[in-house]
Amino acid sequence: MVRRLEALCVRDNLNKINMKEIDLRSDTVTKPTTGMLQAIMSAEVGDDVYKEDPTVNELEQKLAKMFGMDEALFFPTGSMANQAAIKLHTQPAEQLICDKWAHVFNYEGGGASFNSGVSCKLVDGDRGMITAEQVEENINPPDFYHSPLTTLVCLENTTNKGGGACYDLKEIKKIKKVCDKHNLGLHLDGARLFNALVAKKEDPRDYGKIFDTISVCLSKGLGTPMGSVLIGNKKVMKNAMRVRKVLGGGMRQIGFMAAAGIYALDNHVERLAQDHKRASEIGEVLRGQAYVNEVEPVETNIVIFYLQNASDEAKFMKKLQEEKIRISNMGQGKLRIVTHLDYSEEMHQRFLEVLRSVKL
Amino acid sequence: MVRRLEALCVRDNLNKINMKEIDLRSDTVTKPTTGMLQAIMSAEVGDDVYKEDPTVNELEQKLAKMFGMDEALFFPTGSMANQAAIKLHTQPAEQLICDKWAHVFNYEGGGASFNSGVSCKLVDGDRGMITAEQVEENINPPDFYHSPLTTLVCLENTTNKGGGACYDLKEIKKIKKVCDKHNLGLHLDGARLFNALVAKKEDPRDYGKIFDTISVCLSKGLGTPMGSVLIGNKKVMKNAMRVRKVLGGGMRQIGFMAAAGIYALDNHVERLAQDHKRASEIGEVLRGQAYVNEVEPVETNIVIFYLQNASDEAKFMKKLQEEKIRISNMGQGKLRIVTHLDYSEEMHQRFLEVLRSVKL
Amino acid sequence: MVRRLEALCVRDNLNKINMKEIDLRSDTVTKPTTGMLQAIMSAEVGDDVYKEDPTVNELEQKLAKMFGMDEALFFPTGSMANQAAIKLHTQPAEQLICDKWAHVFNYEGGGASFNSGVSCKLVDGDRGMITAEQVEENINPPDFYHSPLTTLVCLENTTNKGGGACYDLKEIKKIKKVCDKHNLGLHLDGARLFNALVAKKEDPRDYGKIFDTISVCLSKGLGTPMGSVLIGNKKVMKNAMRVRKVLGGGMRQIGFMAAAGIYALDNHVERLAQDHKRASEIGEVLRGQAYVNEVEPVETNIVIFYLQNASDEAKFMKKLQEEKIRISNMGQGKLRIVTHLDYSEEMHQRFLEVLRSVKL
Amino acid sequence: MVRRLEALCVRDNLNKINMKEIDLRSDTVTKPTTGMLQAIMSAEVGDDVYKEDPTVNELEQKLAKMFGMDEALFFPTGSMANQAAIKLHTQPAEQLICDKWAHVFNYEGGGASFNSGVSCKLVDGDRGMITAEQVEENINPPDFYHSPLTTLVCLENTTNKGGGACYDLKEIKKIKKVCDKHNLGLHLDGARLFNALVAKKEDPRDYGKIFDTISVCLSKGLGTPMGSVLIGNKKVMKNAMRVRKVLGGGMRQIGFMAAAGIYALDNHVERLAQDHKRASEIGEVLRGQAYVNEVEPVETNIVIFYLQNASDEAKFMKKLQEEKIRISNMGQGKLRIVTHLDYSEEMHQRFLEVLRSVKL
Repeated sequence: MVRRLEALCVRDNLNKINMKEIDLRSDTVTKPTTGMLQAIMSAEVGDDVYKEDPTVNELEQKLAKMFGMDEALFFPTGSMANQAAIKLHTQPAEQLICDKWAHVFNYEGGGASFNSGVSCKLVDGDRGMITAEQVEENINPPDFYHSPLTTLVCLENTTNKGGGACYDLKEIKKIKKVCDKHNLGLHLDGARLFNALVAKKEDPRDYGKIFDTISVCLSKGLGTPMGSVLIGNKKVMKNAMRVRKVLGGGMRQIGFMAAAGIYALDNHVERLAQDHKRASEIGEVLRGQAYVNEVEPVETNIVIFYLQNASDEAKFMKKLQEEKIRISNMGQGKLRIVTHLDYSEEMHQRFLEVLRSVKL
Repeated sequence: MVRRLEALCVRDNLNKINMKEIDLRSDTVTKPTTGMLQAIMSAEVGDDVYKEDPTVNELEQKLAKMFGMDEALFFPTGSMANQAAIKLHTQPAEQLICDKWAHVFNYEGGGASFNSGVSCKLVDGDRGMITAEQVEENINPPDFYHSPLTTLVCLENTTNKGGGACYDLKEIKKIKKVCDKHNLGLHLDGARLFNALVAKKEDPRDYGKIFDTISVCLSKGLGTPMGSVLIGNKKVMKNAMRVRKVLGGGMRQIGFMAAAGIYALDNHVERLAQDHKRASEIGEVLRGQAYVNEVEPVETNIVIFYLQNASDEAKFMKKLQEEKIRISNMGQGKLRIVTHLDYSEEMHQRFLEVLRSVKL
Repeated sequence: MVRRLEALCVRDNLNKINMKEIDLRSDTVTKPTTGMLQAIMSAEVGDDVYKEDPTVNELEQKLAKMFGMDEALFFPTGSMANQAAIKLHTQPAEQLICDKWAHVFNYEGGGASFNSGVSCKLVDGDRGMITAEQVEENINPPDFYHSPLTTLVCLENTTNKGGGACYDLKEIKKIKKVCDKHNLGLHLDGARLFNALVAKKEDPRDYGKIFDTISVCLSKGLGTPMGSVLIGNKKVMKNAMRVRKVLGGGMRQIGFMAAAGIYALDNHVERLAQDHKRASEIGEVLRGQAYVNEVEPVETNIVIFYLQNASDEAKFMKKLQEEKIRISNMGQGKLRIVTHLDYSEEMHQRFLEVLRSVKL
Repeated sequence: MVRRLEALCVRDNLNKINMKEIDLRSDTVTKPTTGMLQAIMSAEVGDDVYKEDPTVNELEQKLAKMFGMDEALFFPTGSMANQAAIKLHTQPAEQLICDKWAHVFNYEGGGASFNSGVSCKLVDGDRGMITAEQVEENINPPDFYHSPLTTLVCLENTTNKGGGACYDLKEIKKIKKVCDKHNLGLHLDGARLFNALVAKKEDPRDYGKIFDTISVCLSKGLGTPMGSVLIGNKKVMKNAMRVRKVLGGGMRQIGFMAAAGIYALDNHVERLAQDHKRASEIGEVLRGQAYVNEVEPVETNIVIFYLQNASDEAKFMKKLQEEKIRISNMGQGKLRIVTHLDYSEEMHQRFLEVLRSVKL
């Protein structure tokens, strides 16, 4: 009997050794598909510093056209695309308005102050989303020179820390009106904008009409190795190349990576619906578990939930780790799961099973 | 009969023409007393850029000794003293924690980001005051390099936007413990610290023991024409002269103004109790008026109150103006009164009378 | 005999003890005259942060009118006035052109980079003065985004490190043409502009027509305790109050010091000719001394000379010190003398005598 | 006869259409070889933001080991690697010393002032190279707080604007001594360091012993699509990840590009000798042409020369263009040629022929 158990354990361990790791920490961990790799290999490239990389140029034009805007510029990272946008919109000492959970404030290394010398007026929004009313309340009187001049509003859609929540386009339009009235720029951190577009069945052109600048990330849900693109209209993009240069973002034959972006736009947008469906199913299962206190609404590919006992955090993470499953710990019993291109149906079923079987 | 009325009106107008203006917008509006002017005139001065102004040196030593700290440095303004302190404590991209109403965030022109490249994590405190618990919750994990490194906490005592509220020294001590545990600097914006010291009967040395740097303003309650002093310990003050220089704050024979500061420290501290008493009496009267919705607790020399109808704001201000009385309008029916050295007992009685007689 | 010698020595020492110190390190060391002190005492003041100080306003208007420009703004120091001007003219990453000896580059604590994020293209001028040709050669091509965009030229008149040399107004006009052609701002660091105006018998209005901004210092040759004023036209001065605020330069009842400025403009400008005459006489005497290698041309109130042996520097400074005379040591055998308001005819004769008697 | 000429012209045009373009503007224009493309395709990657990309890690370790230093970090560009180094070494308001032609001052968009708030003391070196004596002369006295504190020296080897000139290692060692004596950091902009190592037959470890930080570029002579690496010792590299993050340089599965770097280090270093030989031969041919006034010494892969008549510039460039040859015009009759991996022997012979045949 003992022998049989031992044999089972060995087999179990072997299984675990053979098990593929399930990495749900972020949708940034994906690796290119075969098709994308082929696109990379066959890319025609040139020196993008001289604006002579045909693939980069094609990607930029494709995105500008998709959003109905004048121009687009490729950046090594989404942080740089956002930070460049902030710089393009503001002058030092000015102030931007954003949600207290905004990526531009919380997860870009302090860039708004470092690169642009601007401060962030933090608004107490709902799951990372703010309202037109809140924007208006937080504008400093422009003639009162003791307070920083408010010149920019930054929205995030979907919200990262807010668990993939999507804005209602109607509220965004109201915010735009406030911006127009008070002469404020309006930037969209669209790191996961394609998730919102798919989830809400929205048209990118509607966004292009509203925002002055939009950053989109190619390496999250879209699954490329790297790269973000800043899209905008001529006037605000005028110094974009200068700003990218001074931040150190002007690369050479980067068309290889841009090619992955073109491939992703052609092949990986619609499939985001699958990530959303799986995230929703994960949320459902979690809601049924005793160890879970609360699951935030799942709108796209992010699931945020809270354990009954925050003190069980380490134990829970360890159990997942034994199953070669990685998720994000946001502290104080708050956990995050992100579905993506490399999270297969097989992994999904195994993960759901593990979630159902955990006892804390 | 008409004649008599006209005569009365004329007399009334004449009275108003002869009436001294009562300016309660801020305690910064005071003008030097005769004693202070004599101190200014008889000051021995030198070139402070070479550190050869004996009166400036005396003022700095007097304040350092009063707070039991190593050094002090004279600045043209409180904003510069605070901003220099932030620079001395931080490096660009780092983050400081302060109340959402903090002067350093709201009323110093965006200086923290402009001069030091740091961001402000805004805490939702109580009348401008934050707790040790809130500080601890808002520290970014030091190894998580996506978020700015938290390195400084800024408190304000008394609070300006918080209506002159005073910290409990016990809470400050708890905050200090959190700072020590997490290796954070602790700066006090003491623009109105002398009001707190007098109101709470506290010893400046207790503050000197807790804070790494303290700015005190000489031109608010103390009544000098200009000037603030940054007090601190050797280590953090090491580059204070360099920072003052690069901000453009190194003046020459400024001992004339420092002399006013010495005079004020000797003559105008204890009398702050009178400002507090009058502020308290104003608060009492306001509480009894039908047009007032709420009066915030009056702890020192600031009275913040709300009209029943925010829409009556302009009307109320106009009525005061007709009586040559000026107070501050903070927007949305919120009004501020600040008592000070130039607000005499005679003015006080007249003001109380006016407040009682207003009908909206 | 010995006794007599001792007695003589004692008398000599007593003389030295009674001797007034002659401080020729800089013209910043002066103390207010009785007339100026009276002006200070009788100044009408207000809160300049609210722009309610009548004396500050008068000083600003007086200077704006004198230079035929739209506006003027009072600053605590010349460094801040210059740095504010640089900020008003530029955006971060841009470049300004100045002489390699320019005060804005060398003696303002690194402010151009710190406050404005701009770099300085250093030109190899003549005694601190650059030519229109040099300006044109040093402009970066505006479309070449790898190099900083050149947007400002800063001149200094008279030059500090250049020994008080004065520009030829014709050359300045040529520089202005280059600036207009290439769309560059033109700022004058006029810390000692009044010396140039008096020496060259020039009209301030000619300067007002050429420059976009001019800083003038009240505490050097003019002899006030502190303060500089930035004068400029409306367009460029639009944000001057904001910039002064964020640098921490907005003071309160500073009319006391502005009053000294008004007095100085009325009483201390013409007398600069006396400083120049004395400086010239010092230069003459130095040229005749064996220990002197070279004396730079003396155009205004600064005398720069070189010892025959740089190694005699310490010895020479010590001899002067024994006579209670202080001058500036600029290193490598280069010495500087600056004449000023507090350098009387009596001191002058004694100083010339000392210079003639020194043996190294 | 005419027909024959026409036929010849047609053939000539056809030849030109078939001719491959010869691009000698810079060594940044190269495209990956087949071997490098294979390395890219087969790279094992991960999320480098979590430091989980094995290929990036391998590249970093390979370079750290090669230079005998503690650590290395991959950057999207050489500008960012240099700018990050400057930030790691300095604090705002400080000053670095570099040659007047330094890439960090001239061609990084004004980054030193923008990103780090530091100024550059420009030294009048020889072909971009400065001496230990010049470094020492240009250090500001550390106690004189009016001048920026000098804290860093930046060298460039080979020099870009200096025409690929190589430092003498002995001079670098002398500079290091000056840095040690005055407590200055020492950074090497090694964008083309491998050219110097090959040309001078030097050991990278000698550089690792001297410099605190070294940036090397993978996309110039080494021929990768993009990427630079900053190599340094632990102490100075401590915040390198933070600085890269705030500048927006933290990419994801960038191992694809790092793989190209590993391949280049293994296969493209020794062959730089070929680029140098060809550059030298180009220099020889140019020296023999009547239209050439002067050719600067050719030490590595850069040839800088001057036309007899600067006014012939456009004509000369046009002639080359007709032959599908591109070189760089540096203005005022100064031209630059850079040889590289994609410049074949066949192209070389054709180019030499064209140079010999040009008549101006």
